[in-house]
Amino acid sequence: MTLPQGYCYSALYAGIRKTSAPDLGLIVSDTLASAAGVFTRNLAQAAPVKLARTHLERSHGTARAILVNAGNANCATRTGGSTARASVKAVAQALGVPATRVIPASTGVIGVELDSSLITRHVPALLNGLSPDRFEDVARAMITTDTVIKTAVQEAELRAGRISVAAMTKGSGMIHPNMATTLCFVLTDAVLSPPTVRAMLREGIETSFHRLSVDGDTSTNDTALLLANGASRVAPTRAERRIIADRVRSVLESLAAQIARDGEGARKRIVIDVSGARSTAEAVRIARAIANSPLVKTAIAGSDPNWGRILSAAGSSGATFAPSKVTIELQGVPVCRSGLAAPFSEPGMKRRLDSPECEIRFSIRGGGPGKARFWTCDLTEKYIEINASYRT
Amino acid sequence: MTLPQGYCYSALYAGIRKTSAPDLGLIVSDTLASAAGVFTRNLAQAAPVKLARTHLERSHGTARAILVNAGNANCATRTGGSTARASVKAVAQALGVPATRVIPASTGVIGVELDSSLITRHVPALLNGLSPDRFEDVARAMITTDTVIKTAVQEAELRAGRISVAAMTKGSGMIHPNMATTLCFVLTDAVLSPPTVRAMLREGIETSFHRLSVDGDTSTNDTALLLANGASRVAPTRAERRIIADRVRSVLESLAAQIARDGEGARKRIVIDVSGARSTAEAVRIARAIANSPLVKTAIAGSDPNWGRILSAAGSSGATFAPSKVTIELQGVPVCRSGLAAPFSEPGMKRRLDSPECEIRFSIRGGGPGKARFWTCDLTEKYIEINASYRT
Repeated sequence: MTLPQGYCYSALYAGIRKTSAPDLGLIVSDTLASAAGVFTRNLAQAAPVKLARTHLERSHGTARAILVNAGNANCATRTGGSTARASVKAVAQALGVPATRVIPASTGVIGVELDSSLITRHVPALLNGLSPDRFEDVARAMITTDTVIKTAVQEAELRAGRISVAAMTKGSGMIHPNMATTLCFVLTDAVLSPPTVRAMLREGIETSFHRLSVDGDTSTNDTALLLANGASRVAPTRAERRIIADRVRSVLESLAAQIARDGEGARKRIVIDVSGARSTAEAVRIARAIANSPLVKTAIAGSDPNWGRILSAAGSSGATFAPSKVTIELQGVPVCRSGLAAPFSEPGMKRRLDSPECEIRFSIRGGGPGKARFWTCDLTEKYIEINASYRT
Repeated sequence: MTLPQGYCYSALYAGIRKTSAPDLGLIVSDTLASAAGVFTRNLAQAAPVKLARTHLERSHGTARAILVNAGNANCATRTGGSTARASVKAVAQALGVPATRVIPASTGVIGVELDSSLITRHVPALLNGLSPDRFEDVARAMITTDTVIKTAVQEAELRAGRISVAAMTKGSGMIHPNMATTLCFVLTDAVLSPPTVRAMLREGIETSFHRLSVDGDTSTNDTALLLANGASRVAPTRAERRIIADRVRSVLESLAAQIARDGEGARKRIVIDVSGARSTAEAVRIARAIANSPLVKTAIAGSDPNWGRILSAAGSSGATFAPSKVTIELQGVPVCRSGLAAPFSEPGMKRRLDSPECEIRFSIRGGGPGKARFWTCDLTEKYIEINASYRT
């Protein structure tokens, strides 16, 4: 898989976080790209989120660069707005483009002033370091409590040639509402208009990041961006746009699954498949309630096939279904049929649940067409350890 | 404080749970009492919940006895209905009253068949053990992962004489939606009609158990009952009914606070006071969002004054407010003013937060009249340990 053409990347340690890992990253498109963003719906929005929104509006959905930092969310700070503006301005001037063409994104601790000079004085070095093969360096510069970087690349062979879609994300937190700041950048070299880019991003987010227990309306800094710079010179037909949208969705789903795998303190990824709900929305509700239940998450952590907690979580989700029609399978083995205990080997099930990949299947017999897949992770002592003193 | 007159209590170990602690309790009123219940709104309702509802309906809001067991929720079981019916029938026959006068309540593991003979064959011994001074024995027979029993007693001197209100509860789980089965029984010897009893219970639950992160619509077994047997022969005036309602509210709030203090693995109780919201409902929303945030709960566990997480949780609660008007105080010390960091001594604050009682005050300056108090607890490694293998 090759990265999309026409993008360069750079990253360095600017002294924003305490440890000396890279904390400042830059993505530059050679030419003006169509661009769209999906942002947190939290009332308390970080300065870079507000500025990113404004820039995308003023530039009519175009961008040349993304500037990202980890270690400080630049949220609930006195100097938040001016720091964000000064940072993107420094990059824009160095690139010789209007400030509105640079989109900022920040993640890290909230409520601590971010010294803009830490960023502005590193802009020359950042630009010097730009290279088409430093994609992963940016992915590394934006992680916080992540233990691995998360990237995905997909290609598509269209009539006019090959296009590529590459994406990177950082998922801190435990993949739980109110838990994480998620940043996600998707880049493609296809020729796409701003409205098409916007539609593709929204559609892709729906079945990926919105099906992870990290909601659009949670943290103060959540930001997902899609840039299409047309460097491949491949303009898709109407039918081919569907193919590209599928690639975008595919990289986003891959990233969501990678975040679930790397949840703070997580030992296991949990995939939840719901079927037979009255609608997709109800299926998502049920899946989300199961995914968000600390009792379910701790049971999986302990390899305990405690399906009663799964049924109970679903029953209080707000979705309507008959508990007596429910089948629950863990790792493919039915543990509850028609809402009642199904016989299974206790030690056998325990062994199966010791796997780093756990699957919960929740089916409503004779129900509706609603189905959904949802990602989460188990809840372990390690999570507490990480989060009991993140700030200090 | 004296217990209400005209009630007897009994408890014993019936072999329902594995450990040999008492697991079967009985409360009997000497005379027919006015009675009301508030139950879980979970779709998956335990058999005893359904039967309790039916009995209160058929008896037009009256009862003679409450039969409670721990160790098995009698939920999602093939024999659930017949076991619940057989159990209350055995008690009713022994007391010589119709079955509808006995209200069942169960707590414990879901999806495991409960052998009714464990209960029925112990009914004679249970009745033999009845005594007016075994109130705490019943409180002890219904706890699960609780580390202490939880009771509260209040008296009121009315014109016609003294009345008493006594209550017991068990709060397992971590005081979090989807987490706990809560059983709560309130007894008074005042003379009150069934509609008055119903209104008092509902009103009292609103500012107590509904302000704990244990919702009415969560577990499969949540049950709160209020019985008024009139044994004091004190019939309150209209104005005095208000006094009794306040006593009922007061014991319920005390129990809710006791549950928060004894949350699974909790080292600290967290009291959240919100003021300046647009309405009480919005204040409750904000408080609940803060209380339910694992990031806030782990920060408190680590004595970390991470107010950004509190602001972020409130910002995604769905309530509407200006983050720039928010003041957050921890242990009475402002850590955030006008949505920005307020200066405080880091080691001093850490010491204050090491207390077993933590207070979060969230005020919106120039906001509305909405305020609410909410209880929760911190989230510790111990919680994971308890819940990773509760079933097995």
